[in-house]
Amino acid sequence: MATNVGHGEGDLAVQSCKDQLYALTPEENIHCQHGLYFQDGQRRVDYVLTYPVKKPGGGRSSRQSTHLLTENAVARSLRRGVHSRGIHSRGEHPRHHQAQRPKDSSSLPSSPVADEDHKAFRREEFEGKLRDTGLELEKDEDTKIPGVGFVKIHAPWTILCREAEFMKLKMPTKRVRPTFSSLSLYLYKISSLVSKVLEPLHPHVEEHQPKNIKHLSHTFSREKQHLLLGSGVYTAAYPLHDVIMQPDTVDCLLQLLYEEWANYSVFYKYQPIGLVRKYFGEKIGLYFAWLGLYTQMLIPASLVGVIVFLYGCATVDDNIPSMEICHPRNNITMCPLCDRVCSYWKLSTACGTARASHLFDNPATVFFSIFMALWAAMFMEHWKRRQMRLNYEWDLTGFEDEEDHPRAEYEFRVMQKSLSKDQKSQHKVEKLNYQDRLPAYMTNIVMMLLMIGVTFAIVFGVILYRISTKAALHMSSNPTTRNHVQLTVKTTAAIINLVVILILDEVYGAVARWLTVLEVPKTDKSFEERLIFKTFILKFFNAFTPIIYIAFFRGRLVGRPGSYLYVFESYRMEECAHGGCLMELCIQLSITMLGKQLIQNNLFEIGIPKLKKLIRYIRSKQGAFQEEERQKKLQRYEADHFLEPFAGLTPEYMEMIIQFGFVTLFVASFPLAPLFALLNNIIEIRLDAKKFVTELRRPVAARAKDIGIWYNILRGVAKVAVIINAFVISFTSDFIPRMVYQYMYSPDGSMHGFVNHTLSYFNVSHFQEGKETMDPLQLGYPVEICRYKDYREPPWSTTPYEISKEFWAVLAVRLAFVIVFQNVVMLMSDVVDWLIPDIPKDISLQIHKEKILLVDLFMKEEQGKVHILESRTSAVGKENCSSGNNNNSTMAHQRSGLHTNSTNSF
Amino acid sequence: MATNVGHGEGDLAVQSCKDQLYALTPEENIHCQHGLYFQDGQRRVDYVLTYPVKKPGGGRSSRQSTHLLTENAVARSLRRGVHSRGIHSRGEHPRHHQAQRPKDSSSLPSSPVADEDHKAFRREEFEGKLRDTGLELEKDEDTKIPGVGFVKIHAPWTILCREAEFMKLKMPTKRVRPTFSSLSLYLYKISSLVSKVLEPLHPHVEEHQPKNIKHLSHTFSREKQHLLLGSGVYTAAYPLHDVIMQPDTVDCLLQLLYEEWANYSVFYKYQPIGLVRKYFGEKIGLYFAWLGLYTQMLIPASLVGVIVFLYGCATVDDNIPSMEICHPRNNITMCPLCDRVCSYWKLSTACGTARASHLFDNPATVFFSIFMALWAAMFMEHWKRRQMRLNYEWDLTGFEDEEDHPRAEYEFRVMQKSLSKDQKSQHKVEKLNYQDRLPAYMTNIVMMLLMIGVTFAIVFGVILYRISTKAALHMSSNPTTRNHVQLTVKTTAAIINLVVILILDEVYGAVARWLTVLEVPKTDKSFEERLIFKTFILKFFNAFTPIIYIAFFRGRLVGRPGSYLYVFESYRMEECAHGGCLMELCIQLSITMLGKQLIQNNLFEIGIPKLKKLIRYIRSKQGAFQEEERQKKLQRYEADHFLEPFAGLTPEYMEMIIQFGFVTLFVASFPLAPLFALLNNIIEIRLDAKKFVTELRRPVAARAKDIGIWYNILRGVAKVAVIINAFVISFTSDFIPRMVYQYMYSPDGSMHGFVNHTLSYFNVSHFQEGKETMDPLQLGYPVEICRYKDYREPPWSTTPYEISKEFWAVLAVRLAFVIVFQNVVMLMSDVVDWLIPDIPKDISLQIHKEKILLVDLFMKEEQGKVHILESRTSAVGKENCSSGNNNNSTMAHQRSGLHTNSTNSF
Repeated sequence: MATNVGHGEGDLAVQSCKDQLYALTPEENIHCQHGLYFQDGQRRVDYVLTYPVKKPGGGRSSRQSTHLLTENAVARSLRRGVHSRGIHSRGEHPRHHQAQRPKDSSSLPSSPVADEDHKAFRREEFEGKLRDTGLELEKDEDTKIPGVGFVKIHAPWTILCREAEFMKLKMPTKRVRPTFSSLSLYLYKISSLVSKVLEPLHPHVEEHQPKNIKHLSHTFSREKQHLLLGSGVYTAAYPLHDVIMQPDTVDCLLQLLYEEWANYSVFYKYQPIGLVRKYFGEKIGLYFAWLGLYTQMLIPASLVGVIVFLYGCATVDDNIPSMEICHPRNNITMCPLCDRVCSYWKLSTACGTARASHLFDNPATVFFSIFMALWAAMFMEHWKRRQMRLNYEWDLTGFEDEEDHPRAEYEFRVMQKSLSKDQKSQHKVEKLNYQDRLPAYMTNIVMMLLMIGVTFAIVFGVILYRISTKAALHMSSNPTTRNHVQLTVKTTAAIINLVVILILDEVYGAVARWLTVLEVPKTDKSFEERLIFKTFILKFFNAFTPIIYIAFFRGRLVGRPGSYLYVFESYRMEECAHGGCLMELCIQLSITMLGKQLIQNNLFEIGIPKLKKLIRYIRSKQGAFQEEERQKKLQRYEADHFLEPFAGLTPEYMEMIIQFGFVTLFVASFPLAPLFALLNNIIEIRLDAKKFVTELRRPVAARAKDIGIWYNILRGVAKVAVIINAFVISFTSDFIPRMVYQYMYSPDGSMHGFVNHTLSYFNVSHFQEGKETMDPLQLGYPVEICRYKDYREPPWSTTPYEISKEFWAVLAVRLAFVIVFQNVVMLMSDVVDWLIPDIPKDISLQIHKEKILLVDLFMKEEQGKVHILESRTSAVGKENCSSGNNNNSTMAHQRSGLHTNSTNSF
Repeated sequence: MATNVGHGEGDLAVQSCKDQLYALTPEENIHCQHGLYFQDGQRRVDYVLTYPVKKPGGGRSSRQSTHLLTENAVARSLRRGVHSRGIHSRGEHPRHHQAQRPKDSSSLPSSPVADEDHKAFRREEFEGKLRDTGLELEKDEDTKIPGVGFVKIHAPWTILCREAEFMKLKMPTKRVRPTFSSLSLYLYKISSLVSKVLEPLHPHVEEHQPKNIKHLSHTFSREKQHLLLGSGVYTAAYPLHDVIMQPDTVDCLLQLLYEEWANYSVFYKYQPIGLVRKYFGEKIGLYFAWLGLYTQMLIPASLVGVIVFLYGCATVDDNIPSMEICHPRNNITMCPLCDRVCSYWKLSTACGTARASHLFDNPATVFFSIFMALWAAMFMEHWKRRQMRLNYEWDLTGFEDEEDHPRAEYEFRVMQKSLSKDQKSQHKVEKLNYQDRLPAYMTNIVMMLLMIGVTFAIVFGVILYRISTKAALHMSSNPTTRNHVQLTVKTTAAIINLVVILILDEVYGAVARWLTVLEVPKTDKSFEERLIFKTFILKFFNAFTPIIYIAFFRGRLVGRPGSYLYVFESYRMEECAHGGCLMELCIQLSITMLGKQLIQNNLFEIGIPKLKKLIRYIRSKQGAFQEEERQKKLQRYEADHFLEPFAGLTPEYMEMIIQFGFVTLFVASFPLAPLFALLNNIIEIRLDAKKFVTELRRPVAARAKDIGIWYNILRGVAKVAVIINAFVISFTSDFIPRMVYQYMYSPDGSMHGFVNHTLSYFNVSHFQEGKETMDPLQLGYPVEICRYKDYREPPWSTTPYEISKEFWAVLAVRLAFVIVFQNVVMLMSDVVDWLIPDIPKDISLQIHKEKILLVDLFMKEEQGKVHILESRTSAVGKENCSSGNNNNSTMAHQRSGLHTNSTNSF
């Protein structure tokens, strides 16, 4: 259910597999032949490139996208693929030389045959370079998948060591016993009791056993790469999955993940984050750790939410305003809700709505939205701490993001530009300037505004649908139809809204990607950030515009009986039911949230990959051989070829952020949102896990220290949530009018008379010609004065139907509440932020101790040499330390940091 | 005036001194004998310890504080003192061994003689240990200052090299040409023109010449130490100043600083920050860089402020409300301002105030406070960038704050606790727990609240003074006295306030220090942070409570004619003059700010150190020899002994932060604040510089990456400023009532009639018995209806003198303005934060390029070795990289980072 990092080490695997994991040598693994090794059974396949083969007898070569991939990009991507852990080393990386810059990538071939030849030539050239760097290649064109050739790549141990050193990866050295337990005996007993109680929650991967042994620093890692999907030269590039589902397998890491992680039956357990990180890399590990923490944090939130909801249920009968509405004695005659066709009605008919409103509109709601704002701050802080802890345990403390290389598309554009400029000037074009980017930027802005406009237009369309249907149904004379008016209209409108949101979500994802490609960002990182930003903006507007409309605009500008406001001259502006708009907001929220989660997350996420896999399989099947037979005989690299390529974590994060929005933004109106989110996420974790383990090609492991831009987006959402909740409480709910009545107007300090106070008077003789109701005697008696919900002067005042003093007083209190709420909650969030240290105390202590250990070791080593050093004259020493020394050997020593026995080089 | 870091390198000194600076060897410097070297004239004195000597013929030994200083603390402090740059190396540092922990520091000696012996013994022991670590010591008890012995310490080159390596200091290696100028030719011409124009602004230290040469990484540095001031064993510890004011000196760094920095005549120039950092260390360098940037940023702010003020001056005659007040035709009769003794008055007598108010209360003020909020955000961002740039230039990019050692006081408390516990249990006490700290925490909270209470009480006292004096003067029958009432009361009250603030500032500083000592924080860093936090809270309240009172509370609860509110039954609550409280706020602000700056900063900062120096001089003079003669003959270390010890940067920062508060918090009411701050700071920089160069002992240089907690405090002040300005504009100024009148009530959309609209009616017959004025005919005619400034119902309404609808409407708009202003400005600040990258583009490019350079160098070195590596079997390689390798040699290699030729150790 959530990550478990407190106990022991993430990279300690299950006992039964431990020996195999650590002692696996090529010699022992000859029997494991399912395509994981070269033909000699010795060298492991670390990476696979595929390309189309034109076979006379085979099917036609698979279609290729016309994307451009320079060798530079491939080389770079491969270089990032270093991953080594004992024998579990894969990844390779030719040196990134200036000479490898694209030379001919602009000369796009014209005919298909020349194209094919050209590509084959470039493959040859590229593979030669790979061999030059020390990698070992094996080609296999005679596979069971017709039309696809494979290049299997093996990175020898020496190359891995060199690259690991080059990337400054940390390695395991001395084992130390972390002293997390400076607890007293008493506290220790409690904590052991707690861990015993929690034991069933831990996955059976031995992570939770108090081993108390940790490597001082350990394991290499690998870096991200999505660049390789779709290319003109190779069709795909991926590392191999371990073998799974084979009883005789020795690679039990994946097996373990399959059993203890990607399995719905372990939904109540912590995730084996250490193993996830080991198999998929830090970036994916961080995602699941984040998802785990988020789900964990949702537990208290949904508990409190349920309690708040139950409080609403329990107090519904004590609620004086709804009692007054329902009481048959105070049967107030209300004014018609529309001109001519509507008639007078009794307030007691709104009894049901009023009672239901109380469930979501009671003082506990205010408490709950403060609670959720602090909860969001706590979540941020806890994530910072969890991240820090993972950084320490995964030895990323010293890791800095590698500088990003320009993307292939960017380099291509620059080259194009310099080619076109060459005729005009002598300047070498090195980058795209503002002028080059202006058209793309303009398109971006225009398209973004257009898309947001589309969202608004659709919301407005749904509103019009509601208004017109309502009007039409109102006019119908059939009383049963009229009774079902509210329900029918609300339900159909909400479903239309949901469908539109789901469709636009997909459209906006594609639009954002297209716009970002248009922008030609320089680096992968900037590409990702821009894409995320745009997608977030569009999807956020898409999901929340209808909700914001209901919360803040609906029922605000409706006019008053006798002068209702109209749109298009015939449709009245929408009004909320008597209990306020909070009830409708709640309905809209729950339908959108549940619908989105059920349809989008579960249906789409499970269904579409399965569908795609099926399509890919059918397309390449061509009726050649039987499925069962093939499944068995398929080499690992062939089987992986049929899997869906990994498309990045953006959709997963995005889904969760939008959900986080539902949980925090309007939580004042829907205290059950955290519960629904929790239920969804418990499934979501295992669903994602299953997808990663069985549905996707193994992603290239990527190193990452944090979740990047997502953290900022989370912060932004949490900040906006404070303001929106302040407005929901003060403007959408009836909390403030009730408070104002109780403390300013109530004669006895109670809520009695509140309903009467909120209703203004209207003299029916003031109806304009043609606006009076057609059926004045529907209630059975003639009406002289009717009531309507607003703060307006009565007909007998000097300024009848003007906005009254009470309106302004309530408005002022509402605004004051917003200011107080916003600033108090922001202050409290800041205090939470300030009180909880970003680095857990035990981790900072441990880091400190490890530093001292290193220093001590260094000092012991130094001790013997210091006398030699001292006996030398200071002149010699000066040569080593002074500033004038330009040679490379000094450089090397400088780089070697603490390594001081400079005498070695003399 | 401001830092200059864009051009060339900070550590390139003036041409004339350059050779000396770089080629200075001990051999060349024998002629420089002013106490900078040991008796042999060879070894430089890097550090000086002083202790009391009991001489039979000399004066009595100087009084010593009874503070406790363990050897541990001394050793630690000395160890931090590494500073080496070519020959300019000073600082030394015995290894910090566990064995050096205090052994006998708890056994305080009883008699003075035994005390003296005991101390002498401990000095011996300590000095022996210093010698063991390789430092060279020279004792000098026969100085010209009777009763003071000096231990001069020299750190040999080898020791410095060892420690520098140990601290992972960077050193200069290859010179590279930074390619900041990827500008086109056209842009280059512009920039060279700009730099030519700006040339007079640069100090003559050659920093600004476009050398375009920078060391890849360079110079060692040293760390902070204030711990040594006052001890039972040594009386003082300080490094030596370079010689100054001697025409034949070769140490021209200080001379340069003296001429080009600590000099009022160069006030318009940039500061030579590189030199400051070189002489005083990074921490002080960062302070001056920050002060410089702040001053620089104040220039546009004061320009805009002056323009806003001038706009107010220019439009004062077009201001309709003040025209209406001043116009003799609309001569409105106002109600008495107090019961019985006051009489009716004419509104036109408030003409002057109304006109003056317009200077600070016009639409430009709103614009200006938005501008200043963005200015603050810009300032933060620029400082982040400047800091990053300095980090790069001073090679602090990889530097992490060293873990803090426990303070001596803390260790003493822990020892005390473990001694007292020893009798009871066997547990070893390692730290103070919550129980030990509770009394101190409670004292802290109580004292802080008490102090804040004192501030409030004093402000209240001043209010009472104002009210009572006013009442007394009102009652006087002398008309001239009465005319001067306002002026006299305001001026005396403001002066009293100022004096109180100045006195309390000193008191609060002492209280905060006392409270922090009581808390016994564990580390120096935490001590400093707690002290700063407490001091800031107290001084902030002290400075701003009277101002906040005037802005938000004065004139709010005054009642109405006929039922004025009273305090103590006889004194009426204060009211603001007719133009609103903004005018008075402005007066109070300017008096406090100017007074504080003039008296506190300049008088105190110059006067007190001079006074202290004089006292110290007089005390040790004892009439032994002549001043002039002594001044000449005094050794450097003797002369430095008479200087004031360096007491940390806290007071300097604090002063500036409070000033920043004045500049941002109430800027809506006082647009000239930035100008006054600018003028003050121009002097302040040179004043501080002079103090550091001539008045203080040379501080131990300390490394620091940033300005620490001060940045957070600045952010906090900037955040609070947005809210306070929102409230000042909407509640203190008349901006919102004017807007409301113009757009809601004005018959013709102009401001005509505004004054009439803000005045309510009072029927004089409604005065209660005994409250009517004694002199109803003072204006020469009988009054039936008088007016007063408030939004209340007229006497003829159904609810006379109740708060009117207009009041609520204006209140609602005021609150809405606060919400809009706060959120819009916060959003804009966030956008500014987001738009301006934290790392300047050229710096990030340069860092990237240097990384590539290092990689290239490393690769070239590697190239030759890779073949040897490859020829080895992978089994050997595995031995190096695998996890099971526990020996120290692997450890050393791991530490050596990029250093890969592991074959060396085999």
